[in-house]
Amino acid sequence: MSKRKGALQQEQCAEQSTPQASLLARYRKIRKDSESICKPLQVEDYGLQTMADVSPPRWHLAHVTWFFETFLLKPYLSDYQEFHPRFAYLFNSYYETVGSIYPRPQRGFLSRPTTEEIYRYRAYVDEHMQFLLQNISESRLDEINIRSQVGLHHEQQHQELLLTDIKYNFATNPLCPVYREQPSVANIPTQDIQWTEHNGGMVSVGADGAEFCFDNETPRHNTFLHPFRMASRPVSNGEYMEFMDAGTYDQVDLWLSEGWKTVKEQQWQAPLYWQKVDDNWYYMTLAGLQPVDISAPVCHVSYYEADAYARWAGKRLPTEFEWEAIASVHDPCKGHFLDSGYYQPGAATGSGMCQLFGDVWEWTQSPYSPYPGFTPLPGSLGEYNGKFMCSQMTLRGGSCVTPTNHIRASYRNFFYPRDRWQYSGIHLAEDA
Amino acid sequence: MSKRKGALQQEQCAEQSTPQASLLARYRKIRKDSESICKPLQVEDYGLQTMADVSPPRWHLAHVTWFFETFLLKPYLSDYQEFHPRFAYLFNSYYETVGSIYPRPQRGFLSRPTTEEIYRYRAYVDEHMQFLLQNISESRLDEINIRSQVGLHHEQQHQELLLTDIKYNFATNPLCPVYREQPSVANIPTQDIQWTEHNGGMVSVGADGAEFCFDNETPRHNTFLHPFRMASRPVSNGEYMEFMDAGTYDQVDLWLSEGWKTVKEQQWQAPLYWQKVDDNWYYMTLAGLQPVDISAPVCHVSYYEADAYARWAGKRLPTEFEWEAIASVHDPCKGHFLDSGYYQPGAATGSGMCQLFGDVWEWTQSPYSPYPGFTPLPGSLGEYNGKFMCSQMTLRGGSCVTPTNHIRASYRNFFYPRDRWQYSGIHLAEDA
Amino acid sequence: MSKRKGALQQEQCAEQSTPQASLLARYRKIRKDSESICKPLQVEDYGLQTMADVSPPRWHLAHVTWFFETFLLKPYLSDYQEFHPRFAYLFNSYYETVGSIYPRPQRGFLSRPTTEEIYRYRAYVDEHMQFLLQNISESRLDEINIRSQVGLHHEQQHQELLLTDIKYNFATNPLCPVYREQPSVANIPTQDIQWTEHNGGMVSVGADGAEFCFDNETPRHNTFLHPFRMASRPVSNGEYMEFMDAGTYDQVDLWLSEGWKTVKEQQWQAPLYWQKVDDNWYYMTLAGLQPVDISAPVCHVSYYEADAYARWAGKRLPTEFEWEAIASVHDPCKGHFLDSGYYQPGAATGSGMCQLFGDVWEWTQSPYSPYPGFTPLPGSLGEYNGKFMCSQMTLRGGSCVTPTNHIRASYRNFFYPRDRWQYSGIHLAEDA
Amino acid sequence: MSKRKGALQQEQCAEQSTPQASLLARYRKIRKDSESICKPLQVEDYGLQTMADVSPPRWHLAHVTWFFETFLLKPYLSDYQEFHPRFAYLFNSYYETVGSIYPRPQRGFLSRPTTEEIYRYRAYVDEHMQFLLQNISESRLDEINIRSQVGLHHEQQHQELLLTDIKYNFATNPLCPVYREQPSVANIPTQDIQWTEHNGGMVSVGADGAEFCFDNETPRHNTFLHPFRMASRPVSNGEYMEFMDAGTYDQVDLWLSEGWKTVKEQQWQAPLYWQKVDDNWYYMTLAGLQPVDISAPVCHVSYYEADAYARWAGKRLPTEFEWEAIASVHDPCKGHFLDSGYYQPGAATGSGMCQLFGDVWEWTQSPYSPYPGFTPLPGSLGEYNGKFMCSQMTLRGGSCVTPTNHIRASYRNFFYPRDRWQYSGIHLAEDA
Ligand SMILES: [Fe+3]
Ligand SMILES: [Fe+3]
Ligand SMILES: [Fe+3]
Ligand SMILES: [Fe+3]
Repeated sequence: MSKRKGALQQEQCAEQSTPQASLLARYRKIRKDSESICKPLQVEDYGLQTMADVSPPRWHLAHVTWFFETFLLKPYLSDYQEFHPRFAYLFNSYYETVGSIYPRPQRGFLSRPTTEEIYRYRAYVDEHMQFLLQNISESRLDEINIRSQVGLHHEQQHQELLLTDIKYNFATNPLCPVYREQPSVANIPTQDIQWTEHNGGMVSVGADGAEFCFDNETPRHNTFLHPFRMASRPVSNGEYMEFMDAGTYDQVDLWLSEGWKTVKEQQWQAPLYWQKVDDNWYYMTLAGLQPVDISAPVCHVSYYEADAYARWAGKRLPTEFEWEAIASVHDPCKGHFLDSGYYQPGAATGSGMCQLFGDVWEWTQSPYSPYPGFTPLPGSLGEYNGKFMCSQMTLRGGSCVTPTNHIRASYRNFFYPRDRWQYSGIHLAEDA
Repeated sequence: MSKRKGALQQEQCAEQSTPQASLLARYRKIRKDSESICKPLQVEDYGLQTMADVSPPRWHLAHVTWFFETFLLKPYLSDYQEFHPRFAYLFNSYYETVGSIYPRPQRGFLSRPTTEEIYRYRAYVDEHMQFLLQNISESRLDEINIRSQVGLHHEQQHQELLLTDIKYNFATNPLCPVYREQPSVANIPTQDIQWTEHNGGMVSVGADGAEFCFDNETPRHNTFLHPFRMASRPVSNGEYMEFMDAGTYDQVDLWLSEGWKTVKEQQWQAPLYWQKVDDNWYYMTLAGLQPVDISAPVCHVSYYEADAYARWAGKRLPTEFEWEAIASVHDPCKGHFLDSGYYQPGAATGSGMCQLFGDVWEWTQSPYSPYPGFTPLPGSLGEYNGKFMCSQMTLRGGSCVTPTNHIRASYRNFFYPRDRWQYSGIHLAEDA
Repeated sequence: MSKRKGALQQEQCAEQSTPQASLLARYRKIRKDSESICKPLQVEDYGLQTMADVSPPRWHLAHVTWFFETFLLKPYLSDYQEFHPRFAYLFNSYYETVGSIYPRPQRGFLSRPTTEEIYRYRAYVDEHMQFLLQNISESRLDEINIRSQVGLHHEQQHQELLLTDIKYNFATNPLCPVYREQPSVANIPTQDIQWTEHNGGMVSVGADGAEFCFDNETPRHNTFLHPFRMASRPVSNGEYMEFMDAGTYDQVDLWLSEGWKTVKEQQWQAPLYWQKVDDNWYYMTLAGLQPVDISAPVCHVSYYEADAYARWAGKRLPTEFEWEAIASVHDPCKGHFLDSGYYQPGAATGSGMCQLFGDVWEWTQSPYSPYPGFTPLPGSLGEYNGKFMCSQMTLRGGSCVTPTNHIRASYRNFFYPRDRWQYSGIHLAEDA
Repeated sequence: MSKRKGALQQEQCAEQSTPQASLLARYRKIRKDSESICKPLQVEDYGLQTMADVSPPRWHLAHVTWFFETFLLKPYLSDYQEFHPRFAYLFNSYYETVGSIYPRPQRGFLSRPTTEEIYRYRAYVDEHMQFLLQNISESRLDEINIRSQVGLHHEQQHQELLLTDIKYNFATNPLCPVYREQPSVANIPTQDIQWTEHNGGMVSVGADGAEFCFDNETPRHNTFLHPFRMASRPVSNGEYMEFMDAGTYDQVDLWLSEGWKTVKEQQWQAPLYWQKVDDNWYYMTLAGLQPVDISAPVCHVSYYEADAYARWAGKRLPTEFEWEAIASVHDPCKGHFLDSGYYQPGAATGSGMCQLFGDVWEWTQSPYSPYPGFTPLPGSLGEYNGKFMCSQMTLRGGSCVTPTNHIRASYRNFFYPRDRWQYSGIHLAEDA
């Protein structure tokens, strides 16, 4: 962890001298990043919502802006005039205590406000936010700083979602549109898997307070692990093809009961986005339809598929604490992240434990639950995480569309076991 | 009928000297009209599909173009190169015998081709169509002429649908976008209803061959009517409010069994688009939210509501042949049509039978069935009408968004009894 | 028609001397018939409801009893005490104006009242009905007689439904239970189809008042027919197999649009109840699984299938008035009816027009609509027929499970085009 | 734990001298118990399935019998002839590796085999099982003993389900049938809640091998607890009424996101089975509709309601290991069980920790997951538990319809968070 902290401090030092200045710089950068992500889009692409879980790019851009307006400008900037009286209704995602909410599955029905108007909304809020950040009174510095950090990490989460949702939207189109052309990747041989052993025993997990975290990572606490081993890299596409070729999508004994039901109802035969063309596997990427890279980590699999793969391989998925115990001694900046501009998981290179961070979110066998002593943030921000602690599974480590520096060892992501549109993959463990 | 034929001939004479030239002029005008209708739209509006029955404006523009490409350019223009290899799949509506069809409920998922590309598609097809129409060999004149007429009437149908669907799309948006501002209408007093009597007996119905018709209007044939009376105008909004105020949406004995079920499931309390603001009724129009005009015909009601209104009023709906027997002696150009640019039904003025044509499509009590001896068009065009002759009701007379000159006394429109997003209204009849 | 009237009168004369006595005898017979139908059932079978359209036998027995209690005993028998305070709620089928109604899809959830208690309910109501019928005051004779006739015809309709629903229930059971063993039928060769011509012109249709009828058969009125021909018998199973073998369930151009959608969604490949065993077709009957009789009329087809068959054969379905024009000169007692105890349509024998009545209900191309001048019965009995006049198709002629003497040329049955669990078949017509 | 083991040994000693004899006696008793439970039923009640989760009593009786036939008679009794060739299909619940499975939601569609035949099936299997148990070869003693124990515990689970499902079935009937009359209960005052503190630290959880257990309770392992306190009894109906009276079913901030959605969709306002009659709360019981006993534990609540109640009360639910740590030092025979014949949770009496066992299953905050090192049973019995370890929550302690001696401190039950038809209640904990 210390490596990154050092890096962050340097970055900071180089540019700014005060916490306010640093925060302001960070605000500008992250806000600009979101718009950069949308640059390759046509106006038509901004409004698409091709399933209920996906939001239109335009909506993402407005919603993250609403977050600053709601949780910073309205409470802290006196005489602030909201940009539009109905935006609080249209762009609230799920904060029920803030007010009524426009129905999620209909976000794609809003051709107005237009994309241009939403960019004006962004500019308006940015202008006021910059004023606020430049004029924070000492007494409110902490409060505003914390909320701004939440807002910026929230926006980074939506940067990942922007790319994730654009991919899903484009993949429904028979024309297979290209978001951004990519040079084809040189073939990298698949690394052998090594197994790292951990002796178990009492470990401390959860955020240690050294950097920003979400409330669901707290409190840091002790937990007891049994000895285990963790694979040195995620399962590759080539390995997953072997699993598929073994007829596993038709072998009931490999699957959780819910998983089998889903596989049959949805007629799954391969990960999301895969299709066979002339007997070869291709997958949809943000660079269009491409041949499957057999050395890269398999991606866009559900928890059910991750669990079935592990059972077939005679292994298991790690718990989130096993994962964290291993990950906390590795550098969270190593791996492929959004900033690389590649937007696909890449093959592992080098030796030793790798790709814990970046490339693919790793399904753990841990249901998403509160930590002992967990208390949500006060007020409406308490709805950020806590109310979803039911029926979902924890994923760890970030992916190739996670902004670098957004991820950390204690970071907990969560999705339903059936979800596949995220960049989710498989990292094996076993009892030692 | 003769009046219009005269008018059409004059129009024709004034401008062109040959049938080809006339056809070409008509082609250009109608194609241009579709684009004019879309002028007030933002790029964002072109892609919206807010329910399965509605198509995005962009899709309408491409689909009518596909119709010319498929049924005219490909069969009749040698060496014609299709504009794009996948458009035949994307823009086929329901012609199963032509090839596979992109799923209707997902038309709104296609952000590509962009609007601009679809306009290029139109230009490309127009260019080739004009070449074709200017170079028809005598031997194929009839065939090409008939198919072109079908294509142009088809496009006119989609002009009506464009406005109908834009209205529906905009009405789902809490911001109530305005398609085109309208001056407010001077209050016109509601005309008293007069009753026109018809003695019944044998009448001839169906297209008489004097002008273009669809196959579902043929063959012209005799049918026997019992004496009846027809109201001089459609039911007004004010009259419909009386019906609502009588608590009829909660009186089971007024409704068809299916109607009652639908009313309760959908929680209908008023026509589509109506909402109460401060105890006054407003409705969504293409000019935004406006106060209900009590003298204008009630519009956007289902067959169930039309039928229940008639029962409550002690009357009934006419059969389609009663309607046609009356309408065939009236001028089909009198009434409010698309060309007026008002896009709302207007109050009846003048005396005598009025608004049989234009303003609102009139639900008849006739299920949509084939005429005795009906034969669909040969080939794929036979899918135009015949395969829908089940479970739908016939509507007659056109509406305020029907292109003038598109409607005629024998014209049969058809929708499901539950449908309300069309400009559908109520015209009463009774036994004499 | 006169033949049967004669027969009825004789029957009557032989047994009774007064209208009251005759009515009473008829009441006793029909009530007893319902119970005879249920004799082969196990207690367990009485409660089954295997789809929403089907009612448990027990429920049928109680509902027809509730009809007499509600429409005769309560209004006409002073001091009548209802058998149970909640039965009016449980056994009302769809008479909304009578009171609230237990949800139809949950009729199978009522293990209580037990079968035995329902038989006690029947006995109680029978006792009081017999008292009422024996003590009718002159002044109310007409009224009570009419309502009793409605009640008895209603019960006969439910006798058909009892067998129809028992068949459906049993067919869902993998054990293929037998309702009643049947001797196997000697092979009867399939008759050639003859075509009977009708010159068309004005005909009178609807009930002529000579015997009992439902309100939907009135008023008798004139209608105009075009010349046509009618086949001498329904389409046979063997003929339908040729249709199937021609790959028609996969040929889109043969089907109505709704029909095609239904065929694909439901994965229909054959009539309801058919299954292939070792390459031979069998069907479920009330005598268990049996080889398909190729000479017998095809049965348990939807309107969509009847319509597609006719299109494939180059013919069409008759209108209900064409059917009636032919049928009204034939004896309605010729054919296989419930009383034969065979419960399957049988092969046509003899020469000339046959099986218009009995064997299979014949889908017509006529949507179920009100006759000109139709007025429903006054009061709640007005809900019997009129409110269903939407989206359904008319069937004519009765079936092999219709009680003999229940059917007549003007009788109109009606079901949704997708319905197949009725004994519904195909009778072809063509333009002359 | 030792107390019960002593009791079991004594019971055993008093009656039998060998393990075989003891097993045989236990077999006879438990098989007879299932039939005793069904004695108050009418034949009609045996076939009812009023929702997909519920099975007909008849089906339960056959399924537990199929279990012995499949896992004992077929593999271990040479020349065993199965009772009926299709029963393996009809009465397999979810053992996919054994063969194809009759669809669960249609279990109520099977009027055949009749109840009588199923009793014959039971007698046939019992006869053969008794022969098998009396003639076990030494070499297979262990194997057969273990499988028999599984079969008997399985049957005990279904005894609980029989009563649970009968209650649900009867509660859908507007006549509120009585399964068995109950004397009304003397009013018992509600005990004050005491809080028992646990210091946390390392604890051993899971089955210790001293008595029978299911695979999901293994392996016994260490886990680390943080200090906590546990309430001395479950939440009472009276306390839950306070919660309801506080308007909590309309306060979004008290609910998990999924819980809120469910509450609104299902329109929950109270626990399952509660209804207001003249402003007083009643609930459906197996003795019919009864006034709510305010001192008895609240029952038939979902996990969402348990969680919301705890949040409202400023407490939380225990983890399953906290629960087990406390329970393992208490007598599992204290509390109300099936054998009491009361079938409702009763008010707590006495002092100190009570009702951990019996009365109501207690929702824990622990998702149902495998223990570290968990291995399912080999073969098809491995489907018993493991494949359900996803999306469900663990419940502990048994209920008033659990057979006495069936429960133990390590016993894990599991249901979906939305499920309410089980006898599920709330036991509070808090951080110490
Ligand atoms: Fe968000
Ligand atoms: Fe079209
Ligand atoms: Fe009935
Ligand atoms: Fe079981």
